[in-house]
Amino acid sequence: MRKKSGSYFSMYEKERKKINEKIKKLLVAREPASLYNPGSYILESSGKRLRPLLVLFSARAVGEKKTGFYNASVAVELLHNFTLVHDDIMDNADKRRGLPTLHKKYDTSTAILVGDSLLSVAYELLLKDVTSKCKPVISDFNKGLVEVCEGQSLDKDFETRAEVKLPEYLIMIRKKTAAMMEMCCSIGAQLGGGSKIEISALSKYGRNLGIAFQIQDDLLDIIANEAEFGKFVGGDLVEGKKTYLFLKALEKSTGKDKSLLKNIIKNKGIKKTEIPFYRDMYNRLGVIDDARKEVKKYTKRALSSLKVLKNQNDREYFTWLADYLINRNK
Amino acid sequence: MRKKSGSYFSMYEKERKKINEKIKKLLVAREPASLYNPGSYILESSGKRLRPLLVLFSARAVGEKKTGFYNASVAVELLHNFTLVHDDIMDNADKRRGLPTLHKKYDTSTAILVGDSLLSVAYELLLKDVTSKCKPVISDFNKGLVEVCEGQSLDKDFETRAEVKLPEYLIMIRKKTAAMMEMCCSIGAQLGGGSKIEISALSKYGRNLGIAFQIQDDLLDIIANEAEFGKFVGGDLVEGKKTYLFLKALEKSTGKDKSLLKNIIKNKGIKKTEIPFYRDMYNRLGVIDDARKEVKKYTKRALSSLKVLKNQNDREYFTWLADYLINRNK
Repeated sequence: MRKKSGSYFSMYEKERKKINEKIKKLLVAREPASLYNPGSYILESSGKRLRPLLVLFSARAVGEKKTGFYNASVAVELLHNFTLVHDDIMDNADKRRGLPTLHKKYDTSTAILVGDSLLSVAYELLLKDVTSKCKPVISDFNKGLVEVCEGQSLDKDFETRAEVKLPEYLIMIRKKTAAMMEMCCSIGAQLGGGSKIEISALSKYGRNLGIAFQIQDDLLDIIANEAEFGKFVGGDLVEGKKTYLFLKALEKSTGKDKSLLKNIIKNKGIKKTEIPFYRDMYNRLGVIDDARKEVKKYTKRALSSLKVLKNQNDREYFTWLADYLINRNK
Repeated sequence: MRKKSGSYFSMYEKERKKINEKIKKLLVAREPASLYNPGSYILESSGKRLRPLLVLFSARAVGEKKTGFYNASVAVELLHNFTLVHDDIMDNADKRRGLPTLHKKYDTSTAILVGDSLLSVAYELLLKDVTSKCKPVISDFNKGLVEVCEGQSLDKDFETRAEVKLPEYLIMIRKKTAAMMEMCCSIGAQLGGGSKIEISALSKYGRNLGIAFQIQDDLLDIIANEAEFGKFVGGDLVEGKKTYLFLKALEKSTGKDKSLLKNIIKNKGIKKTEIPFYRDMYNRLGVIDDARKEVKKYTKRALSSLKVLKNQNDREYFTWLADYLINRNK
């Protein structure tokens, strides 16, 4: 029997709440409190919990029917939060999900150490769920960590480089965002006892979903409804970020447009009042449509790998999830 | 046939050079260079390579006779360097082994990310050497990481606390220093195929050696020969660090001495010119002798666990190593 999208949303929400409950209890009893309380602070600020859900549902899609792999699921959320805490220091970000970032609420030293510690607990949790599959699962998890560090390093390099090409940008987001989502699907499928073909198909789903997700993120910075977005629209332009849209605009533009865009790089951003002008330019150059097409392209690639899944409900769930993420407004 | 201490030193040096060669090649071909070149910078600044040596010789002591576990050995050195890079940021340290610290040579963001990345490569290397023993070896390695984070957090807490008791200090150094050396011996013994008794004995050796090593470190800050020490003697007093000697002095002192010591906490250190006065006070209170006795006590405990090793040369090597570390001058 086919389920409706409403019931997929309920499945997502049900598991999201379960993950949230596990995260709430996770660090309470651990000492020193000076280390684990700030860890709880960042973990409990609500998030989509997308990555743990990818682990859980990938395991189920390959036939796992028991209690689930909640330790592994929480582990990937901890790994994700470790990257957020350290990235926020590097970006000197004040807010995260509407709350002060960890290094602003506490201090930089605390944030460095809490990030490290979240990672250590992530491995500890993951180890609880691996049995015979220890080496391939830990290897994939760690590959996610290696790549996210490399991706963040490329992202930092891009900030100060005068020229970045779109293929380089795609390599960066593949490492910084997509590798982690690929890993979530891969370890879920492995823990659930999936075949090589299933593991590879779900990994491909995660990877392409991750790329679509990141380009959608770049897109939202320009097209979002500010009330729903939770932060001001155009922030990437103000910060002079080399997003998909910006790099595509630079590629397509000529003459005055091109030199204005190059000036954004030189000046490391624009004034808030200039946002509408550049949004118009993006529209005129067609890069908003280009980005939408790119999101669709990678989503389609993600969905194409689902056909190996035996159960129609699983295929539909992952299709719904891609749709849900791509049509998100924040 | 019994070996002389000179030949143990040669064994140590031979393996240290081998580790150095492996480290030199480790990150050369990896990209992005902006991430891995600073990683090489910190790894190649010469060190004792004590932790890798503990892995190698623990494996041999339980009968490993093949090519050794050089990946695992280099992995623990990377884990160690990850902690140094992040600790140096937290301590705002300018120099490490006579060279600019990573965050001074580059910047804080780079140092955070390079530390993270060293840790990711550490797991990658370790995974190469684990086969059937994946779960216990990775678990022990990760326990070392969990504890070193907790130990560093306690150390940071102590900086701002008005009162720290000696037992608390011992818990801190056990986590911050000894847990890692325990882990090196434990994973070496496990990889080498040691029995439960051998693994436990070598772990105990590493743990107690680690505690002795750290108290000796505190002691060297007062008794070292400045020319050999490589940094000025008394630095811990100037920084107002709550070392074994300081806390023992606080415990034993009364009247004027006690209030002077309490003032060091309040003032967060002393002037360089006051070092001789406090060294005399330490001598008068007998805390230098106390520290020496404590180093001997933990060294004796370390050595007492060696009797389970079958080979006399192995027992003698680990005895020599303890002696070498405890009698070091920097």
